[in-house]
Amino acid sequence: MLNIYLGEAKVNLKTPALKNLIIKIFKKYGLSQSHAAISANALINAELVGAYGHGLSRLKMYCDRISKKVINPKPKIKIKKISNSISHVDADNSIGFVSADIAIKQAIINAKKTGIGLVAVKNSGHYGLSGYYAEQAVKHNLVTMIYTNAPPAVAPHGALKTLFGTNPICFGTPTGSKIPFILDTSISMINRGKIRVAARNNQSIPEGVALDKQGNPTTDAKEALEGVQLPIAGFRGSGLAWMVDILSGVLTGGNHAGRVKDPFDDFSGPQNIGHLFITFKANLFQKNYNQRIKDNIKTIKKLPKIKGVKEIMYPGQNKFNRYKNNLNKEISINEIIQKDLEFLQK
Amino acid sequence: MLNIYLGEAKVNLKTPALKNLIIKIFKKYGLSQSHAAISANALINAELVGAYGHGLSRLKMYCDRISKKVINPKPKIKIKKISNSISHVDADNSIGFVSADIAIKQAIINAKKTGIGLVAVKNSGHYGLSGYYAEQAVKHNLVTMIYTNAPPAVAPHGALKTLFGTNPICFGTPTGSKIPFILDTSISMINRGKIRVAARNNQSIPEGVALDKQGNPTTDAKEALEGVQLPIAGFRGSGLAWMVDILSGVLTGGNHAGRVKDPFDDFSGPQNIGHLFITFKANLFQKNYNQRIKDNIKTIKKLPKIKGVKEIMYPGQNKFNRYKNNLNKEISINEIIQKDLEFLQK
Repeated sequence: MLNIYLGEAKVNLKTPALKNLIIKIFKKYGLSQSHAAISANALINAELVGAYGHGLSRLKMYCDRISKKVINPKPKIKIKKISNSISHVDADNSIGFVSADIAIKQAIINAKKTGIGLVAVKNSGHYGLSGYYAEQAVKHNLVTMIYTNAPPAVAPHGALKTLFGTNPICFGTPTGSKIPFILDTSISMINRGKIRVAARNNQSIPEGVALDKQGNPTTDAKEALEGVQLPIAGFRGSGLAWMVDILSGVLTGGNHAGRVKDPFDDFSGPQNIGHLFITFKANLFQKNYNQRIKDNIKTIKKLPKIKGVKEIMYPGQNKFNRYKNNLNKEISINEIIQKDLEFLQK
Repeated sequence: MLNIYLGEAKVNLKTPALKNLIIKIFKKYGLSQSHAAISANALINAELVGAYGHGLSRLKMYCDRISKKVINPKPKIKIKKISNSISHVDADNSIGFVSADIAIKQAIINAKKTGIGLVAVKNSGHYGLSGYYAEQAVKHNLVTMIYTNAPPAVAPHGALKTLFGTNPICFGTPTGSKIPFILDTSISMINRGKIRVAARNNQSIPEGVALDKQGNPTTDAKEALEGVQLPIAGFRGSGLAWMVDILSGVLTGGNHAGRVKDPFDDFSGPQNIGHLFITFKANLFQKNYNQRIKDNIKTIKKLPKIKGVKEIMYPGQNKFNRYKNNLNKEISINEIIQKDLEFLQK
C-alpha cells in the first residue's frame, strides 16, 4: 500500500495509506512517531482544503531542512507559564506543526480555565495554515486570533525592497453550525505558496499581484518569487503586515524585520519564526453567542446578490466545502510531488 | 473669549478657549462636567491629528442625538467584572467618548494587574478615533487591539447592498520612542468621515473608492454616501469587516449585521454600538521589548526607498507629526462648523 505514489497519480485522502507514508518519511528523518503524525495530519489537511501551497509540495523542504540541521527533529520544547492565561513556548527549532499544535492546545487550556488565553511561541518554523489551528480552538467554543510572520515577500509602503512576509491574519469563531467561520487571509494580494506552486508547474500568476526584481509588473511566477509581492490596499496592507511582524516576531522573541529565512532557499540557520495565539470563550459576554452569530450570518446571507453570485459565503465556508468534497474523491497528485515522495522514502 | 467662532475663522487649539466652548455646549445639552470634558478632548484631538471627519464636524450630530433622546446625557454606566482580566461595560447609551474612555481605562487596569485585559462594551455610540484610545494604553507600555463597528457603508463580498460599517482595525504598541505605533485603518478604501467632509464642502472623492446607489462608480461624495463604499482588497477586506462586526457586535451584545444606525440620519433609536478592547503588557515575553521594536523600526526605515519617498513612516507617525504641527499654529475652522458652534451655544 505504501507505494501508491510510485507511478500512481490518484489517491483517496481518507485512506490511511498517504498518512502512513508521510509518517514513515518523517520518522526516517528523525521525528518521533507523535511529531510525525502531527505533521502528517497538517500536510494532509492542507491538501484536503485545497491549500496545495501548504501541503505535500512542502514535504521535501521540511526533510531537507532536517537534513541540513536547521529544523531540530528532537526538540526539547519548553512551555513557560506566565499566568493561568499566559504562556510562552520556546520551540527549540522544532518543525512548525509541532510547536503550533502545542501552543494552540495550551491556548485552549488557558482560555477554558480563565476565559482568555495568550500564548506566544519563539524558535519555531513554518506551520502551514493558521486556520488549521484556529479550527481546533473553535471546536472548544472559543474565539481565536492567530498571527505568524514569514520570510520577506512584501515591500513596506514606500520601500523598494521586500521585508514583510505574507504575514497572515487569522480569526476564527464558532457559528452555531458545523461549518466554522475561519478568516485566514494573507496581507499580500496572493499567497506566496500559490506562486511557488505556479512556479513549480510553469503556470502564470494573475496581473497586479507582484513585481519582478527590477520593480516591473510580472505574471511570471518565477520572476515574482525573485521580486516583490504587493500588499493589499497599499499603506493599509503594509500597516497590517507590520502589525503581524510585531505581534509574532518582536513580542514573542522570534525573528522579525525581515530576518525570517526562506525555508526553501536559505539553510544558513533555523527560521526562528514566532507565532501568537489569542483565545477566549465565545460566550464571555453574551450567553446566547451562538444564536447571535447564527442571526448575523443569516442576515448577511439574505442580502441581494451581485449577478452570478449564488450564495454569499462567510470565510471558511469554501474551504470546508472543498474539504468535504475532497474526502470523498480521489485526488490527483502531481508528478513532481510523486517524485518527491518516491525520493524521500528511499 | 468664547465667541472666537463667531465670525473668526482661525483658532489656536492649544488655548483652552475652544475646549471650554465645547464643554459649555455639551453641558447645555445635559452632559456632566466630566463627560463634557472627555468628549471635548476627543473632538479637539481629532482636529489636531487632522481627522476632521471625527472632529468638530460631528459636534452638532452629537447634540442633535441628545435632543432626540437617542444619546443618554446622564447614563448609568455599569462595569461588570468577569475576572481580573475581563470586564463587560453596559454604557447605557452614553455618548461613545465616555464609554470608550471608561473601557480603555478598565482595560489598562486589567492588563497592569494580570498581564492581559479584555473589555467589551455594549449600548455605546460613535466614539471618534480608535487610535485616540490606543494611545492611552500605549502610554502604559501596553500593546492594544481595538475594534468597533459602525453604520452600514460597505457591501459584503458578493452582495449588492451595504451592511458592514467601515469597521476600523486598530493596533497600538510602544516604540521605545515618544511617537507610538498606532495603526488605525478602516477596511473601506476611504473613511466615511472623509466622504462626509467632502460632501459638506462640495468636494469630489477619489476614483475607485465608492459606487452610487445604482452600483456605478462615482467621485461625487453625496452620491457615495447614498451608495456603497468599496472594501479594501475585495473578499479579504470584506472578511476583515465581518470579523470586526463579530468582535465588536456579536460578542459584546452590541448591534451587528447592519443594525447600527447612522448617527446623522437615523434618530429612531440609540446606536447600540459595541466595542472591544484588548490590552497586554508589551514586555510579557521579552524584557527588552522596547529595544526590539526600536531595532525593528530602524531596520525597516533603512530600506531603499521608492523615488520621491523621503522617509518610510510607521503607522501613527504622520498623525503624530500633524498633531505637533497643529498645536503650534492657528487652525482654520470652516464656515459650516462655525455656524454649528454659533447655533449650538445659543
